[in-house]
Amino acid sequence: MDTLTSPDRMREMAREFRARGERIGYVPTMGALHEGHLSLIRRSKQVATKTVVSLFVNPAQFAPSEDFQSYPRNPERDAELARLAGADILYAPKLADVYPPGYRTYVAVEGLGTTLEGASRPGHFRGVATVVVKLLNRVAPHIALFGQKDAQQVILIKKMVRDLEMDLEIEICPTVREEDGLAMSSRNAYLTPEQRRAAPVLFRALKRAESAVLKERERSAQRIVGLIRETVAAEPNVILDYAEVVNAATLAPLERIEGSILIPVAARVGATRLIDNVILNVEG
Amino acid sequence: MDTLTSPDRMREMAREFRARGERIGYVPTMGALHEGHLSLIRRSKQVATKTVVSLFVNPAQFAPSEDFQSYPRNPERDAELARLAGADILYAPKLADVYPPGYRTYVAVEGLGTTLEGASRPGHFRGVATVVVKLLNRVAPHIALFGQKDAQQVILIKKMVRDLEMDLEIEICPTVREEDGLAMSSRNAYLTPEQRRAAPVLFRALKRAESAVLKERERSAQRIVGLIRETVAAEPNVILDYAEVVNAATLAPLERIEGSILIPVAARVGATRLIDNVILNVEG
Repeated sequence: MDTLTSPDRMREMAREFRARGERIGYVPTMGALHEGHLSLIRRSKQVATKTVVSLFVNPAQFAPSEDFQSYPRNPERDAELARLAGADILYAPKLADVYPPGYRTYVAVEGLGTTLEGASRPGHFRGVATVVVKLLNRVAPHIALFGQKDAQQVILIKKMVRDLEMDLEIEICPTVREEDGLAMSSRNAYLTPEQRRAAPVLFRALKRAESAVLKERERSAQRIVGLIRETVAAEPNVILDYAEVVNAATLAPLERIEGSILIPVAARVGATRLIDNVILNVEG
Repeated sequence: MDTLTSPDRMREMAREFRARGERIGYVPTMGALHEGHLSLIRRSKQVATKTVVSLFVNPAQFAPSEDFQSYPRNPERDAELARLAGADILYAPKLADVYPPGYRTYVAVEGLGTTLEGASRPGHFRGVATVVVKLLNRVAPHIALFGQKDAQQVILIKKMVRDLEMDLEIEICPTVREEDGLAMSSRNAYLTPEQRRAAPVLFRALKRAESAVLKERERSAQRIVGLIRETVAAEPNVILDYAEVVNAATLAPLERIEGSILIPVAARVGATRLIDNVILNVEG
């Protein structure tokens, strides 16, 4: 595995790969790699001949009040994990090369970036969209892989890639979970042992919602949200921020459950914000 | 010359060119081709092995009050002119393929899109930036060529391409002028004979400013703007909208003339809005 920090070198490498007819798979990360990221790298190796992994903690997607400074960073461990998972290139650009002084250009996906996570995190998705465009332009992949855990992010990125006519495929891979169902997340590292024991209530609430929709044929979004609230309320260490039932393509809130639906949840566990979701396909 | 309207076909063609090692030159236009556009096509043929010209009148860069509906359209004549100038591909996508229902993604270059033309035309440069990203992603050129006449546009596009890490070169070509100095523009077709006779006062005003700076060593931006106002005021058919002296990279207004400066002017001639500019390099 080659580690590159120079954007110019990354470009040369991408051009070289393409000139040789390689198919470039790309897994963008903010580091703090866990099994979810590694599953994306392994999947990339199945669908591409060269796999690039990037490590970049993107300040543009953190609000001033958020954890940009304290976000877990361990580049040596990340490099070792990426190498073991089979990455060919690790691209770890410097902050000043990605956002040099006088940086001015931002990408916004209207309507998909201001609800749900966007409502709690103003500017977050503008930062995500912008850095993803930049990284995709730099790495020039044929296919980029993202985890379903960040459901709103992947919906927004797919829409952006289509709208901006970018020439690549986006593949969404299933959320990887701990044995007790907790979705893998770099932020799980913030949890105390007690919080860690409480956190899987989010997954249990989503499973209960899923069962109500698919087995008990519940079609009221309000009652599904009620079930989730009730489940999470039983765990005093977990404070639900939102639970919604929305259209899985447009994120429009639904009253009646029908079609491809997304149920996203967000909660605070102590000072840590966790998200999770389930997508269900429901006949009318 | 092949004419393509299908975005998919344009992509296939761009991939084919790249796979064969061709160098793609690209001239984006809104049609109504004039000698300025043709000079860009001819220049592209010097620096690339395949030249793509696009015809697309972009609604996103017109305010609701502006001339989107009446903008001059003559695709048969444009095709013939592009062919004669040596274009290999004419790409003329349909409106519904560029902005399908549910379109949501926009690109903004902060600080460069709200002054000068942007102050008079809210949203204009967001529309320009967005469509240029889309077309560049679709055509996948190695080099794209723009005319200096739209000075603010080219400064913004160069900044955007650098900020978004897009992998192409931008070349800016000199403004092509009529014999009496009027900058070529598709909107010149709107002018009555009387207005057409009046319009070159903008060029004369810029030449007077240039001479004051370079020959008389005038260094006060305010006095330069005064000279331009005075010159244009002598022509009652031309109403100056703005004349400014700004930094040619950042568009920041200047008091003292120094370095690489842009003097952009805009005026109304009847109902028609015309722009022009000069760039000067001035030692301290």
